[in-house]
Order: sequence, then C-alpha cells, then structure tokens
Amino acid sequence: MAAEFAKANEKYAAAFGEKGALPIQPAKKLAIVTCMDARINVSALLGIQEGDAHIIRNAGGVAKDALRSIIISQRLLGTREIAVIHHTSCGMVSFQTPQLRALVKGSDPSNPALAAVDQIDFLEFAHLEQSVKDDVEWLRENPLVLPGSQVTGWVYEVETGKVRQVI
Amino acid sequence: MAAEFAKANEKYAAAFGEKGALPIQPAKKLAIVTCMDARINVSALLGIQEGDAHIIRNAGGVAKDALRSIIISQRLLGTREIAVIHHTSCGMVSFQTPQLRALVKGSDPSNPALAAVDQIDFLEFAHLEQSVKDDVEWLRENPLVLPGSQVTGWVYEVETGKVRQVI
Repeated sequence: MAAEFAKANEKYAAAFGEKGALPIQPAKKLAIVTCMDARINVSALLGIQEGDAHIIRNAGGVAKDALRSIIISQRLLGTREIAVIHHTSCGMVSFQTPQLRALVKGSDPSNPALAAVDQIDFLEFAHLEQSVKDDVEWLRENPLVLPGSQVTGWVYEVETGKVRQVI
Repeated sequence: MAAEFAKANEKYAAAFGEKGALPIQPAKKLAIVTCMDARINVSALLGIQEGDAHIIRNAGGVAKDALRSIIISQRLLGTREIAVIHHTSCGMVSFQTPQLRALVKGSDPSNPALAAVDQIDFLEFAHLEQSVKDDVEWLRENPLVLPGSQVTGWVYEVETGKVRQVI
C-alpha cells in the first residue's frame, strides 16, 4: 500500500495551501461518532472541511467505545456538539459476540492466547434506528459528557448517499 | 448543524452514482487506524475512495483502543493489512491521565458520578514516532490480530499535508 499512499499524498500535499495553519480545536466545536465502514466518506458526505470537526470511528459507530475520545474532545479541545451516525447495511447487525469469540478461538484451537477474546464485548446491535437512539440517550445521560452538550443521531444510507436525522 | 449537513449531503447524494452498489468488504483489504483530529482528512490525504478501507479513528489513533474494531474488520470483513497513522501537533502528548481525571472531577466537585472517570485510561503518549512504533509492535505481537497481517506505521504532518512511513 505504501507506494499508492505516497503517490496520492504527493498531490494532496502539493495543494495543501493554508490548511497548514489550522488550529487544533475543531472550528465547528463538533465531534462526529460514526462507523469504520469503508463506504462512508464522512467529510464528503457532510461537507466537513479540514479543521471543522473531530471524527471518531469504530465498528458500528458505537458511542460507548468512543467515550475516552469524547471526553478528550470536549474537555481539552472545546467541542460541545456530538453527532452519532450509524448506517444501513452495517456489519454490526449480522453477528453476536459469542459467535465472534468462538470464530476467533476456533481459528487456532491450539493457541490458548486466543482466549483473551472472551474479555471483549463486540458491542453489536440488532436494530439500526434504535441503535442510534440508544447511543444518543446513553450520551445524553452520561455524567462524563459535558452538561449542555447537543447530541443528535443520524442514519446514513450507503445505497443512496443520503443522511437523515433520527433524533 | 442539521441544516448545514442537509445542504452538503444533498450535493453528495446527487452525484453518488455507482457507489450505492459497493460491497461491505473493503476492496483494499485495509484497515487504517488514525486520530480523530479535525485537521486529518484521511480519504483525501491518502487517496482512499469509498469502498477501499475501514477507517478507525479515536483520540490519538491508539491501536489498543481500536482492537475491537480490528478484530471485526479482519475476522468478519476480510481485511489483512493495518496502517497506523499518528500525526504532528497531536493533543495526546499535551496531558496526562491523572490531570484529565482531576479536570473532569473538578468541573463539578458536588457530583459523585464524575468519579467514573477514574476508570478511564486516556492512553496519552509522550513521543510521536515512538508511539507509532509502539502501536505497530503491539499489533504485530497481539494474538488476536490475524497471523500474517501486514502492519505499517506512519506519521502525518498537519503543517505540510505530507505523510511518511516510519515502520
């Protein structure tokens, strides 16, 4: 992948311009929590520019798994709004933690170190819109999230490129 | 933020074209782990297109905090390469966990629920290049990362737009 990265990056850096002087604090005081899914280009689909917003991504766009980052974002870097964005056709509705643990351990039954996977909750969910609402509620009620934060929830449709607010 | 998102997204969706038919498995079998920093536009700076790669982002781009997502990426969605990208001017070198815990608890000393922050390791680091090497080593040695995975480490310069491989 190195050669491909280098070639694309040369073009990007050549047109970098004044972006090199951007401050560390996000201009929109916004943190976005979304899925790692390869089909999601967060900046492009929301019109987010360099310097605008923290973008936190993990499998599912799970708020619980983003808490460490959110606290740093809010307390040290001044964000006050959180947008949670999950998406259609997400892998997180297609498995359950016990199955994945068994898959990992079964890949090499002779390796006792794989039992460490039993300590991991993979945080899958069953229903897309409900998962967004649950995560928004979880953040709104979490004492470690700054009081007065605006927390919204969205669904992105990987089939159409459209995003819609659900809460 | 809702109105701004909607306007930008209308344009994106109008030009969506054939992206709606992309499979869930990343075409490049690649998972990128990088920081949530607002100045990082991962897709643009590496030439990553929709469908190419999982993009996992958290405060610092810390591998340990990405393990749940990496396991899902590799075991369920077929990625085999991991690129860890940290960056210059990162907030993660500017504080230590005990300070941040004290800051959170001190923001409302009358609220005992804030003591929950003492359970969070904020995973800060002291040296940029070393943090990349440490995370790459951690992944290479982790039994839950698929044997044979290619793991590389990079530094992105927010001042110049340039990315360079360090390991």
